Amino acid sequence: MALANPNRRIDRFLATPEAAQKLSGKNLTREQLSRLEPADRSAIDEAVGPDKVHQGVALKVQPLPAMDTHDSLEGISSDEPALIVALDHVTDPHNVGAILRSASAFGALALLTTKHNAPDETGILAKSASGALESVPIVRVTNLGRSIKDYQDAGFWIVGLDASGSNEIDKMEMPSRCVLVLGAEGEGLRPGVRSACDFIARLPMTGQMESLNVSNAAAVSMFEWMRQRRAS
Amino acid sequence: MALANPNRRIDRFLATPEAAQKLSGKNLTREQLSRLEPADRSAIDEAVGPDKVHQGVALKVQPLPAMDTHDSLEGISSDEPALIVALDHVTDPHNVGAILRSASAFGALALLTTKHNAPDETGILAKSASGALESVPIVRVTNLGRSIKDYQDAGFWIVGLDASGSNEIDKMEMPSRCVLVLGAEGEGLRPGVRSACDFIARLPMTGQMESLNVSNAAAVSMFEWMRQRRAS
Repeated sequence: MALANPNRRIDRFLATPEAAQKLSGKNLTREQLSRLEPADRSAIDEAVGPDKVHQGVALKVQPLPAMDTHDSLEGISSDEPALIVALDHVTDPHNVGAILRSASAFGALALLTTKHNAPDETGILAKSASGALESVPIVRVTNLGRSIKDYQDAGFWIVGLDASGSNEIDKMEMPSRCVLVLGAEGEGLRPGVRSACDFIARLPMTGQMESLNVSNAAAVSMFEWMRQRRAS
Repeated sequence: MALANPNRRIDRFLATPEAAQKLSGKNLTREQLSRLEPADRSAIDEAVGPDKVHQGVALKVQPLPAMDTHDSLEGISSDEPALIVALDHVTDPHNVGAILRSASAFGALALLTTKHNAPDETGILAKSASGALESVPIVRVTNLGRSIKDYQDAGFWIVGLDASGSNEIDKMEMPSRCVLVLGAEGEGLRPGVRSACDFIARLPMTGQMESLNVSNAAAVSMFEWMRQRRAS
């Protein structure tokens, strides 16, 4: 996915002979193939770090160009259904990667997150995202509560997820243009972010558990947003 | 949750003074409190292993008594809605723990899994499950395809999840008594398990991504099963 992304600047491209063989069937450009550096597994082990599982390919890349809230809305018509996912201090890169993957699957436009208390775009995040780092832009902002207002100005309604919410997501009409905001496990939404939300909603739960893993909660709410669009 | 579970045999119970203070407000029995061994953080670090995040308490416990498919149905009336989640060679303990947590949240009766190629009930699994290891029994079986038939005999319909499925979960009527079967990422359902399913269903996806993280896929399908019960 990184190789196929024209916006991704690639500094180095290592592959074992076996992996290079497999990649040669994948429509790589001549320029990309010319830059492939043959490597043995131990060189790749060293490049990606100890105990990391890999399939014989390593890329060293530059971060994607930074995007702001306005960039993320470019080319989106003002009356189409649209979904943005916002994370308030969710720090675990496995969770953020899995959320990015679900965001790509359910057609979210962007992932909005804070500059601080959010994971960098490391190999762990990229691997958990399973390619979605190339398809769902991450918008990093200084003040999440304030940046949410840019989406309100663009006709979005803001739905914060919290166990204390009065609306259950499957019993409410989820807004067609929607920013879904999830907080850190344990901490939840910070007051400034919570007060920027138009609605506070919760997941319906029948069992003894009060909350889900944050990536599971994000997947369920994105799915429900999409399901309501498909049902109407 | 482990302390509150009468079926959980506890061998050792270590807590720092601060953690013991917090636990004293939690309705522990006199017998439990008498067995608490005061410990400093370094003793607990050593007990749980290096680099493990903890809150000052460690329990050394025995596994819960083994359950079979028939045990898992005990006391369940034959006409009530009921949900079982089955995992076919899902090996990552973080994923299995998160699935157990969602299973508890959405009221699943049990998690069915294979004896081999499934994670043990370690601290990693227990922590990801966030207490659900005490509330959702794990049923480990030798042959998943054959054991699924025990549920068919009890009036359950078996729904396997796979991207090739012809039914989308939100466009089909999910069975009221349902075993949801998920396979390993990449591998999917093995042929013997797949052929034991009554339906193969898929998650609707609009984006460029073909699959979700397995715990996210499990959460979405359990949610949809519960949502359909609530909507009818």
